[in-house]
Amino acid sequence: MMPCDTIVHSHILLAQDENRSILRDHSVAIKDGLICAIAPRTDIVGRYVPDREMETDLVLPGLVNAHAHAAMTFVRGYGDDMPLMDWLTTRIFPIEARLEPDITRLASLLGHAEMLSHGITACMDMYIFEDAVFDAARTAGLRLVGGEAVFAFSSAACRNYHEALEATRRLHERSSSRLRTALNPHSVYTTDSEILAACRRLALELDMPLHIHLAETADECALCEQRTGLRPVAYCQSLGLFDVPATIAHGVHLNKDEIAILADKNVCVAHNPSSNMKLASGIAPVPDMLAAGLDVGLGTDGPASNNQLNIFAEMRQAALLHKISDPTALPAQTVLDMATIHGAACLHWPELGRLRQGGPADLVGMNMRFPNLLPMHNPVSQLVYAAGGHECELTMVEGEVLFHKGKFGRFDIGDVIAETGELLDFVRGK
Amino acid sequence: MMPCDTIVHSHILLAQDENRSILRDHSVAIKDGLICAIAPRTDIVGRYVPDREMETDLVLPGLVNAHAHAAMTFVRGYGDDMPLMDWLTTRIFPIEARLEPDITRLASLLGHAEMLSHGITACMDMYIFEDAVFDAARTAGLRLVGGEAVFAFSSAACRNYHEALEATRRLHERSSSRLRTALNPHSVYTTDSEILAACRRLALELDMPLHIHLAETADECALCEQRTGLRPVAYCQSLGLFDVPATIAHGVHLNKDEIAILADKNVCVAHNPSSNMKLASGIAPVPDMLAAGLDVGLGTDGPASNNQLNIFAEMRQAALLHKISDPTALPAQTVLDMATIHGAACLHWPELGRLRQGGPADLVGMNMRFPNLLPMHNPVSQLVYAAGGHECELTMVEGEVLFHKGKFGRFDIGDVIAETGELLDFVRGK
Repeated sequence: MMPCDTIVHSHILLAQDENRSILRDHSVAIKDGLICAIAPRTDIVGRYVPDREMETDLVLPGLVNAHAHAAMTFVRGYGDDMPLMDWLTTRIFPIEARLEPDITRLASLLGHAEMLSHGITACMDMYIFEDAVFDAARTAGLRLVGGEAVFAFSSAACRNYHEALEATRRLHERSSSRLRTALNPHSVYTTDSEILAACRRLALELDMPLHIHLAETADECALCEQRTGLRPVAYCQSLGLFDVPATIAHGVHLNKDEIAILADKNVCVAHNPSSNMKLASGIAPVPDMLAAGLDVGLGTDGPASNNQLNIFAEMRQAALLHKISDPTALPAQTVLDMATIHGAACLHWPELGRLRQGGPADLVGMNMRFPNLLPMHNPVSQLVYAAGGHECELTMVEGEVLFHKGKFGRFDIGDVIAETGELLDFVRGK
Repeated sequence: MMPCDTIVHSHILLAQDENRSILRDHSVAIKDGLICAIAPRTDIVGRYVPDREMETDLVLPGLVNAHAHAAMTFVRGYGDDMPLMDWLTTRIFPIEARLEPDITRLASLLGHAEMLSHGITACMDMYIFEDAVFDAARTAGLRLVGGEAVFAFSSAACRNYHEALEATRRLHERSSSRLRTALNPHSVYTTDSEILAACRRLALELDMPLHIHLAETADECALCEQRTGLRPVAYCQSLGLFDVPATIAHGVHLNKDEIAILADKNVCVAHNPSSNMKLASGIAPVPDMLAAGLDVGLGTDGPASNNQLNIFAEMRQAALLHKISDPTALPAQTVLDMATIHGAACLHWPELGRLRQGGPADLVGMNMRFPNLLPMHNPVSQLVYAAGGHECELTMVEGEVLFHKGKFGRFDIGDVIAETGELLDFVRGK
C-alpha cells in the first residue's frame, strides 16, 4: 500500500486519452500535484492510502480557456447591442484609459472565480496591468499564461511599447508552476512592424509563446492589406512571428491558403464563438481549420463581449454555431477536445487538457444528477449540449482543491462579492 | 392592514410593465393566486400582513417556453451530430413508435422539473400521449397548453387522426386554471388538407388555439409547394387555419409577403434558435418579424434537438444568433420581452408574461450573487447574456411555490432522478 494525497472516485471518467475512453467506476490517485494512477476504483483502493478521498459523478480534465481578458468583468453588460466601433470608443476605451491595478486585480479575481466554478483550470489572458491579473491568479490558484498587452500607443499601464515589453519581462521573472508568460502584441492594427519584430525577439530570447488577436474582422483584414499590402496572416508570416510558438485569437477571416500557412507553422487558434456572434465578427472556418490539422481551442474572450467566462457555454456555442450550415459539423467529442487538448496546445502547455499517469492533477468533478443532465445516454453529449457549467462541483489544479461545492479553496467569495460595488463605482467614475 | 398569502421582497423587480421599469426595493403581495399589489417594500409592509415572506435579489415574470416536446427528455443526447432525416428515421421514430404513457409521464416530469428549476412557469407542448404530459404537468404544477399531436398516420398513442382529435377533446375536458388545450396538427408535411380542416373545425368548436410546426426547413417548403402548389403559409391560409388564434413553431423560411400575412392574421411565432442551429434548419428572420409587429416567443423545442429545456439559454442564443449579421439586432430587453410577453401571446394566454395588480402571481426569483452576474450594470443584460438559468431560486405559479432553492414544491426530485434509469432501459429496448 502506497501513501498518496488524494483519491478522487468517479462513476464516469473521461481522461481524454488517445482512444477517448469512457471509463466506468475509475478513480484517480494524486500525490504532489501529479496523477500517480488512474485505474478501476477497486484497484486504486487496494493500492493507495490517501489523506483524503473525494467522490463525484463524472471526472474530466480541467477545461482550458484559450483566450480571455478576465479583468473585463468590470464592464460586463456595460454596453451591449452596439456596433463594435461605437462600443469600443464610447464605452470601453474611455474607461480602460483610467484603469488602475486595484480594479484590475479585483475584477480579475471575480473572473477567475467564475472560471474556477465552471471547471476552467487554465487560461490564456491578455490585458493591461497584467501583473495585477497575475496577483489575482495567484490568489485564485488557477493556471494562467499572460503578458502585458503591447500597443503602439500608451495605455493606463504603460506609456509605450518598450514599457509593455519590460512589464512582460518582469512577469516572466514571476513565473511559477502555475503562471507562465506570453508575448501579447494586441493586434496588427494596434501595433506596427517594429513593435511586432520586438515582440518576436523577446519571445525568442525568453522562450515564450506569442498571443495576438488576428483576422477577427473583415475591417481588420482590409486595413492590414491597405497599410502593408498583405492580409494579416501573410503580414505576420513576413515578420517571422510564426517562427515563435504562436496562438492567434479569433481567426475568423481566413482563406484556405492562410489556413495552410497556419497549419504549416503549427500556429494554434483560439476560437471565440459567442464573442464573434455578439460583435458580428463573422463565423470562423473551424471545420476547415480542424480538417487542416490545426489546434483550435475555445475562448470566452472578455466578459464585455460574451458576457460569460464559461467554457461549457462556448462548447455548446461552437457545436451549434457550426451546425447552422452542416448538422454533422463539430461533433460533441471534437468540441470537448477543443476545450481540453486543443486548448492546452493554444497555451503551449501540452501537459494540460488530459488526465494521465505522471501528468498534472488538474481535473474537474461534475454532479450529473441535475434534471437537465438526465437520462445520460452519452456523457460527452451531456457535457457539450446539456450542461450549463454550474454542475461543476470540484475544480482541482496540481491536486489542490480550488473550488468545491460552492466554496473556493484560497479565498472567500463573499468578500469578493462584497467588493464588486467598487467596480460599479469605478465604471461610473465615482 | 390587509391579510395576504405571501409577500415576495426583491432588490430589483422587472414587472415587464409598459415602460419596462426597473423597480428597486419593491415587493409583491399575493393572495389567492393573484397579485394584490406591487409597490415599494415599505408600502407593502405597511399595508399587508402575510402568512409568508420571501426575499430574493431579482424578481421577474415567469418565463414562457413557447414550443416544447418536454417528454423527449428520454432521447436527450441519443443521436446528436446527425443529418435530420437520418436522426429521425434511425433514432427518434423507431423509439417513438413503441412509446408508452408511463414513459411519457416520467420523461415529461423530468422535463417539467428542468423547466421549473430554470424559471419557466408556462409551456406550449405538443406530443403523443399528451394526457400523460398533462398528468406530469399536474404533478409539477406549471401551466401548460397542450394537445395530442395529429398526424396522417398512426402513432403509438392514436391509430388515426380522428383518435388524436378525440384525445384532444378529452384533454379539453381536463382543462383547469393551469392546463389548457390547443389543436396540434403536427405539420403540413405529416398531415393533409382534410386533417387540417378537421383541426380548424374542432379549434373553432372548442375555442382553442392552433399550434403547428411551419416553415421549419427549406425541404418542407419545397415539398409543400410540390404537393399543393403553395408554400406553407399560403397553404395554411388557404385552408382558413389562421382564422383560429394560431402559433407556428419555427417560421425559419418566411419571405416578406409571408411575414405580412402572419402579421395581418395575428399569427404568433415560436422561435427556437438552438434547435434551428443544431438541426441546420436555417436562421429565422426574427428582426423582420418583430419589425412587422409579430409576437415572437422563444421555445426550446424538444431536448433531443437542443438538448436543454432552458429559456435563459434560448434568450442568450436568440440575442447572439441574430447578431451574427447585425450587432444591434435583438437587444436584451427585446429578448426578455420575447421570453415573457411574446411567449404569453404564443400560448394565447395574455395574462401571463408580466406582473401586475390583479394578474396571476407567476413569478421567478433570482439569486444574483454569483460571480457570473457581477458587477450588475444592467439587470436585463445580466439575465439575457450572463445568466445560465441555474441562478433561479424561486419559481411560483398562482402564488404557489413550485421550486425553491433546489427543492420542488409538489414532488421529490430524488424520486424522479432515481427512476430515470427506466428511460435508459426503455430507449435501449430492455
